[in-house]
Amino acid sequence: MRIGFIGLGTMGAPMARRLLEAGHDLTVHNRTREREAPLTALGARGAATPRECARDRELVITMVSDTPDVQAVVLGEEGAALGMDAGSVLVDMSTISPATTRLIATALGEHGVAMLDAPVSGGSEGAERGTLSIMVGGDPEVLERVRPVLEVLGSTITRVGPSGAGQVTKAINQVIIAGTYAAVAEGLTLGLAAGIDIEAAHAAVSGGAAGSWCLTHRGPNMIVDHYPLGFRTRLHRKDLGIALDAARELGVSVPVAAYVEQLETSLIGRGLGDEDVSNIARIVREQAGLESEG
Amino acid sequence: MRIGFIGLGTMGAPMARRLLEAGHDLTVHNRTREREAPLTALGARGAATPRECARDRELVITMVSDTPDVQAVVLGEEGAALGMDAGSVLVDMSTISPATTRLIATALGEHGVAMLDAPVSGGSEGAERGTLSIMVGGDPEVLERVRPVLEVLGSTITRVGPSGAGQVTKAINQVIIAGTYAAVAEGLTLGLAAGIDIEAAHAAVSGGAAGSWCLTHRGPNMIVDHYPLGFRTRLHRKDLGIALDAARELGVSVPVAAYVEQLETSLIGRGLGDEDVSNIARIVREQAGLESEG
Repeated sequence: MRIGFIGLGTMGAPMARRLLEAGHDLTVHNRTREREAPLTALGARGAATPRECARDRELVITMVSDTPDVQAVVLGEEGAALGMDAGSVLVDMSTISPATTRLIATALGEHGVAMLDAPVSGGSEGAERGTLSIMVGGDPEVLERVRPVLEVLGSTITRVGPSGAGQVTKAINQVIIAGTYAAVAEGLTLGLAAGIDIEAAHAAVSGGAAGSWCLTHRGPNMIVDHYPLGFRTRLHRKDLGIALDAARELGVSVPVAAYVEQLETSLIGRGLGDEDVSNIARIVREQAGLESEG
Repeated sequence: MRIGFIGLGTMGAPMARRLLEAGHDLTVHNRTREREAPLTALGARGAATPRECARDRELVITMVSDTPDVQAVVLGEEGAALGMDAGSVLVDMSTISPATTRLIATALGEHGVAMLDAPVSGGSEGAERGTLSIMVGGDPEVLERVRPVLEVLGSTITRVGPSGAGQVTKAINQVIIAGTYAAVAEGLTLGLAAGIDIEAAHAAVSGGAAGSWCLTHRGPNMIVDHYPLGFRTRLHRKDLGIALDAARELGVSVPVAAYVEQLETSLIGRGLGDEDVSNIARIVREQAGLESEG
């Protein structure tokens, strides 16, 4: 398929590479244009603007940082929308606002361009290996047209409803992660303060109703107060901010998620935003008077 | 082994039955003495008091409701301590205060009686099948002496430290469960309010970093707003109260657990304490203006 790919960061670059390797005809664009070089070396064509990147493409994929970035690269002055033909499809795989997603989809619809929101989870490792989980909002027939392309990028592709629903699902994911980390941090800190055999306690509770991905995979790091990546705290706060905005618009009160957003804000302010998001345990530990390295 | 078993409730009765079936010589006592009948029918001897139940026993097991109950049946007027010989062992499998556990262990130690705290998780189903997870605090040599008996009751037996450490581990378990339920309830409520395909979204997020026992096993009940047992809210609040007391004594701040305790208090006050503890989703839903049956 003729694909334009916009946004070659930690996630976008390996995703674009997988599409090239799968035989697709790719144009690429990145704001910092030097990042296009590794992909043009593999056969992609670089484009000076999103508009140029989108010209004569059947599918345009955007994978950028935040809501304003998607607005700019799609609907901005030299945006992709200006280059796209009626009948083509835009798939936004960034994590952005569900409400803004619906506005962009409506604007594109007026040009005859269909849009899917398709945020992912699974991190840069998932992007490299093509094992992302992709949560899709939008028209099911449009999804079927681009599914073979998404299958190059992800091992699980789930349609979760109309335009914006993919972004809502990503928000659910980040809200649940936030609270689960807080729960694990509180429980383990209690054990650390009590001076019990915390590794044994961790093993004892991990297999039962207290069990979670966070407890199994990040609990050991919380115990030793060391937070290698993983997923950066500043990126999780960005996603959680989107989720809190969405919850506010819908009138949904999510006090645990809001509390965790505050912990993350403190960590970022202290220069710890590039650690793994499990570092919220730092604050829970500090508040208990346990020493922390931060 | 000659075993005295005190407390024949939902958990204790099937545990005592397993010990009988494994060939142990059992005396049993329950405050409401009629509950002894099913076990005496299987060959146990009923005893009028904890003291009488404990007489001439190598091991006494207590499985009662709360901290004051253990104090009463062990150290009370007709308590087990008065019947126990030096060199015998008391294993308390109730969920009670870690601090009081240490006091009881000290008091028994003065009579030459060793004590282990050995609270469990796994519910009545685990009690029936002998698949409980048993978290043990106390002397490792004492644990080795009674391990063959505990193996009749549980499939995982983990020593987590000295006296009280088993109870601390149970507190950790309940604190983590509390926060994880809150996280799952907030995330799913966001999706319900947004009107997306929530079953598909649940499936999409369950396999990744947001995954947990609570999300997989109780998320579907939260989605349909129906909370069959499971583990009763009023029992979880009792355990969480013990955990909050322990955290307070240790100077550990656990705001998420404290918030969930408040939700549970509201539910119990409204007559919903005998539903499954996942019913905290009721309140999160109600606060979002979604209808609830409660």
